[in-house]
Amino acid sequence: MAQLYHSALDPHSRFVRLIMGELQMEAELVEERVAERRREFLMLNPAGTIPVLVEHDGQVVPGANVIAEYLDETRGLVLGDRRLLPEEPAGRVEVRRLMNWFHAKFYVEVTEPLIHEKAIKPFLPANGGGGSPNPAVLRAARANIRYHVQYLGHLLHQRNWLAGEKLSYADLAAAAHLSSADYLGDVPWNESETAKHWYAKVKSRPAFRALLNDRIRGMPPATHYADLDF
Amino acid sequence: MAQLYHSALDPHSRFVRLIMGELQMEAELVEERVAERRREFLMLNPAGTIPVLVEHDGQVVPGANVIAEYLDETRGLVLGDRRLLPEEPAGRVEVRRLMNWFHAKFYVEVTEPLIHEKAIKPFLPANGGGGSPNPAVLRAARANIRYHVQYLGHLLHQRNWLAGEKLSYADLAAAAHLSSADYLGDVPWNESETAKHWYAKVKSRPAFRALLNDRIRGMPPATHYADLDF
Repeated sequence: MAQLYHSALDPHSRFVRLIMGELQMEAELVEERVAERRREFLMLNPAGTIPVLVEHDGQVVPGANVIAEYLDETRGLVLGDRRLLPEEPAGRVEVRRLMNWFHAKFYVEVTEPLIHEKAIKPFLPANGGGGSPNPAVLRAARANIRYHVQYLGHLLHQRNWLAGEKLSYADLAAAAHLSSADYLGDVPWNESETAKHWYAKVKSRPAFRALLNDRIRGMPPATHYADLDF
Repeated sequence: MAQLYHSALDPHSRFVRLIMGELQMEAELVEERVAERRREFLMLNPAGTIPVLVEHDGQVVPGANVIAEYLDETRGLVLGDRRLLPEEPAGRVEVRRLMNWFHAKFYVEVTEPLIHEKAIKPFLPANGGGGSPNPAVLRAARANIRYHVQYLGHLLHQRNWLAGEKLSYADLAAAAHLSSADYLGDVPWNESETAKHWYAKVKSRPAFRALLNDRIRGMPPATHYADLDF
């Protein structure tokens, strides 16, 4: 069986888990603490980052976007009309643009600082960068996410799904990042009814169920996290 | 004619210019200062980043990797045997892995801090983040690049080109980032004869010529920068 090296709250890993869910692809999940820089893991991916997919035939595929392209090319074509990366050039540009928007921009501005301050720092020793969350960093991330939720609302105002008329990798990337922030209780859903409605649609897909069952030790999710009618 | 919004020293823009050179594709180059956040530019790419390709038919393609995939799909197929993204899944994974290595890891660890400290900060007003380069940041970037050049040497020890037996996007991504650092005189070529030999091969390609002719105002390149026999 394929294996996915991941971390439960990591949005890039969640993105790949959502893709695998949509493809109904089974994989063993291996929780990897990248900070430990395990030698065996660095042999798989010298960059030391998650997610990493190891195929049943041994092929190693590191990185969220590389895995997404790989799964589309090796398994996605059979989805036909439900393929998660469209066929025409303009559609592919828009899906990839939004994947990058969330995996790079949203990550740097929102998910990375939120996860670092709330889910990593408090569990590190004081002499290893540990401590309580920095209120200024949390404030900045919470200001940034408001603008992103508004942008989602703007895009969804004239589209059924983020990149067009069909569910695509763009929706899965956005939902993966929002789900990490939502676990921490930091998504201002009141900023956009349209964005909230779209998230409820994605959240109710079978592929999402495993994410909603995730629980981080010592850190329960926000009360509405797994609620389909939030 | 197509247009490329770029900046002369920006490695992601250089990567796209190298691809266009290999494809013998003409485009008008438009120097964009992203820090100014020009309204017309933000309409093209709300993320506010370069490079952005605007096709002759008006299609907007933002981001180095999105442009690379787009150009492969719309123009690269005709290269046949000289296509810059291989056909088989394993080859595609390795090329994309290395593109990400340079565009994400090398950029954060080397090119971004070097360019910011040496080519951006000194030209900003003191009350706008300007100042002379921070020696600690330069020292860290120069320590990091040694390790990257050694990794190049390691990969090239058993391969003709970075991702395998043919020139690919991986070589163009690596060479683009190295060329930015080399302009600033910060590539320790003595770390690996193998890496140096490979760079000389890439540097002598016709596609590279325009990069070697770049001159940044008020900042001449390192003396060996344009020398094919450095």
